[in-house]
Amino acid sequence: MVHTVAHEARTSGQGDMHDVTGMVAAAVADSGLSAGIVTVAVVGSTAGITTIEFEPGAVSDLDAMFERLAPRSGAYRHHERWGDDNGSSHVRAALLGPSLTLPFTDGRVCLGTWQQIVLAELDTRPRNRRVVVQILGE
Amino acid sequence: MVHTVAHEARTSGQGDMHDVTGMVAAAVADSGLSAGIVTVAVVGSTAGITTIEFEPGAVSDLDAMFERLAPRSGAYRHHERWGDDNGSSHVRAALLGPSLTLPFTDGRVCLGTWQQIVLAELDTRPRNRRVVVQILGE
Amino acid sequence: MVHTVAHEARTSGQGDMHDVTGMVAAAVADSGLSAGIVTVAVVGSTAGITTIEFEPGAVSDLDAMFERLAPRSGAYRHHERWGDDNGSSHVRAALLGPSLTLPFTDGRVCLGTWQQIVLAELDTRPRNRRVVVQILGE
Repeated sequence: MVHTVAHEARTSGQGDMHDVTGMVAAAVADSGLSAGIVTVAVVGSTAGITTIEFEPGAVSDLDAMFERLAPRSGAYRHHERWGDDNGSSHVRAALLGPSLTLPFTDGRVCLGTWQQIVLAELDTRPRNRRVVVQILGE
Repeated sequence: MVHTVAHEARTSGQGDMHDVTGMVAAAVADSGLSAGIVTVAVVGSTAGITTIEFEPGAVSDLDAMFERLAPRSGAYRHHERWGDDNGSSHVRAALLGPSLTLPFTDGRVCLGTWQQIVLAELDTRPRNRRVVVQILGE
Repeated sequence: MVHTVAHEARTSGQGDMHDVTGMVAAAVADSGLSAGIVTVAVVGSTAGITTIEFEPGAVSDLDAMFERLAPRSGAYRHHERWGDDNGSSHVRAALLGPSLTLPFTDGRVCLGTWQQIVLAELDTRPRNRRVVVQILGE
């Protein structure tokens, strides 16, 4: 009833996005379950999971929106605490959220043709990311 | 243990929001399940699901916030790719997210009195939307 | 297969955030389930649930980002309807979302060391909040 898959990714830093749709779809297919939900979550407080049309323009536009909302070079109180430079990463990640849950039916995740599940790196430096895919269904 | 309901809606374009609370509540009641979670997801990369107090003022305020954050007439690299005009739609939708998961107990979705589940159309043109409701529980 | 825990919290108003990680982790441990998902949801349309590194700087930075995005003293059509002053709360909450779903494996929620689950009060006045934790798994 519950199937777990973990996926590791190496990111290049803020604005890097990885299409994980194929990995998630394969995990759902491998589970042998027909209907249920799949939760995709990234571990850590400076990355997020969402969906977008995965083409360079839209990916760049999302990064530009984050830069307007929480500029990388802005002043953050988080920087005062640890000497970090990733205050922008923390607020972007808290807003975007670390996880996404989608239904699947007939063994297929409910997504549009031009809609991909993405891991969004929001930290200011390259990171090794762990994505956990949890599938519940019957 | 798993119950699926699909709902179709015709939207009028960016800023149009549909209250789907009644449909979701009915799906949970019809499932015969007492406790569990319900995932509500819209298929496509230019719409989203969230909750809001569904009255015209708050709905308009949310649209105005999106317009400040990602102006419809702004410059988007996505436009260069396909000749589309909906770059604002893609970044708004990626931020809002395509799905929402809520608990239900005693057959009732855990919502406040002034809190409704909404389908938010973010695309620049009218669309036919498919909303999938997936209910897991016992 | 389904375990429900409800948690009550008294908040001090807009910008107040409560770390509920320990409560959620205890609920998962008490469920006796090994693998599954946990959904954390706040009832009401002027609060939200997310994750953040729970230290005063990052919490303050998130509040400051919301203030740029939807200023508390801004003009909101929601105010015209009820004489309320919490239009900023409604749009912030709709964007952040009222719930969060995370996987757990080996009885532990998939979170980073510096990543906490938080209840974010977005309303302009103190509120009594009900947080529902729904755990599904095996």
